[in-house]
Amino acid sequence: MTYCLGILLPAGLILASDSRSSAGVDQIAVVEKLALFEVPGERVIAILSAGNLATTQAVVTMIRQYSRHKQESAGSVENRDILAARTMFDVAQIVGSTLREVLRLNRSFVEPYGDPNGTFLVAGQIAGEPHRLFQVYSAGNFIEALGRTQFLQLGETKYGKPILDRALSPTSGLDEAAKLALLSFDATIRSNLSVAPPIDMLHYESGSFSTRTLAKYDSNHPYWTDLRQRYSDGLTALVAGLPDPQFPS
Amino acid sequence: MTYCLGILLPAGLILASDSRSSAGVDQIAVVEKLALFEVPGERVIAILSAGNLATTQAVVTMIRQYSRHKQESAGSVENRDILAARTMFDVAQIVGSTLREVLRLNRSFVEPYGDPNGTFLVAGQIAGEPHRLFQVYSAGNFIEALGRTQFLQLGETKYGKPILDRALSPTSGLDEAAKLALLSFDATIRSNLSVAPPIDMLHYESGSFSTRTLAKYDSNHPYWTDLRQRYSDGLTALVAGLPDPQFPS
Repeated sequence: MTYCLGILLPAGLILASDSRSSAGVDQIAVVEKLALFEVPGERVIAILSAGNLATTQAVVTMIRQYSRHKQESAGSVENRDILAARTMFDVAQIVGSTLREVLRLNRSFVEPYGDPNGTFLVAGQIAGEPHRLFQVYSAGNFIEALGRTQFLQLGETKYGKPILDRALSPTSGLDEAAKLALLSFDATIRSNLSVAPPIDMLHYESGSFSTRTLAKYDSNHPYWTDLRQRYSDGLTALVAGLPDPQFPS
Repeated sequence: MTYCLGILLPAGLILASDSRSSAGVDQIAVVEKLALFEVPGERVIAILSAGNLATTQAVVTMIRQYSRHKQESAGSVENRDILAARTMFDVAQIVGSTLREVLRLNRSFVEPYGDPNGTFLVAGQIAGEPHRLFQVYSAGNFIEALGRTQFLQLGETKYGKPILDRALSPTSGLDEAAKLALLSFDATIRSNLSVAPPIDMLHYESGSFSTRTLAKYDSNHPYWTDLRQRYSDGLTALVAGLPDPQFPS
């Protein structure tokens, strides 16, 4: 399993993914699930993946190849170059159609062994439009987080949702949202073995067109260690301080 | 969906279930999912249900009928009387075998329309042995919470698990566990429409052989309302007081 989270705020985006790939408990690996595409000063695009690793890696690799060959090739491949796409909507369409192609080629071979599907968060900003956040489904169709949707999640989404439902608001700042994202990952990791650090997190400030705020939080990261300990201690104290229910004895 | 929770502590059991039955968002009802069987001073047995309502109601109703007719009947039905069972293990076996019978009769008819399966928490105490907690799977087999397992869950289990993983300990008292159970339900209800109050909760003190502590928490229950508000305020203050991460600007 996997946990990926995208938070959309007026100030920008928080995009985070865990790093565990597992095919059974004795076959685990550390993989990157956050891929970045950047033209400094002009565009930043992040693709976060969940699902069948062969499928999602193939999609990301094909998109990377399309984007490298734009000078050499023409026609259909040109249309798939996310570094040339005019809008983030067009980028989401490229991810969806590439996923459809990968599944068309592989689905029937993979299904006897397991689920071939993959899903993606596609987010970022292209000069001329605001920062945007999309979720691409296994069918290759997608939704955009608009207005009332503050976050989108992939994979093992439930353990980390209550803290976001309670504490994230439209007025949250980017730094606060980054803190909540790390607490959301902490809750997921504590309750589920299939999600594990390091956490890759991009703290994207709208209009910055830069990925220099990409951070990696492993188990020993001083800030994350301190945050988890303080939160755990604070929550224990909070719960202990709440009155107990009364029952007839 | 449903959320049922059983907590096993040295002092006794906390058993709780929500009340929402849903077959699509426009077909919802309030149902009881916690059934009690009691011989005052001698045994208390609780059966908590999740899954297909027709299946789980049939199982509970059949078990109730078996237990009413013990004077009149003999043989095979006698073996299914949970009011005559000698141990809670035998009670779990009766629930499992009754479930198998219901599914044998109904599975093929129901499957074209949906999932016929059901699962149960079976818990309580019979004089002569300690209080015990079991989970019966759709296959009719079951596990018991022993030693290191402090709680078992049915249904929509993930949203409410982090608070238990963090705050429940083997030294928790029954009242504290009841408070944590209500917070676990609050987290689930906030994040998921398919789980809803009232919450039925039995606070069973070992050796009491009584169900007089059965309580119902609806949305307006003063204690639960106060608990949820204090927890929400406390959590917001806790998170706000934690330091934000630092990013290069």
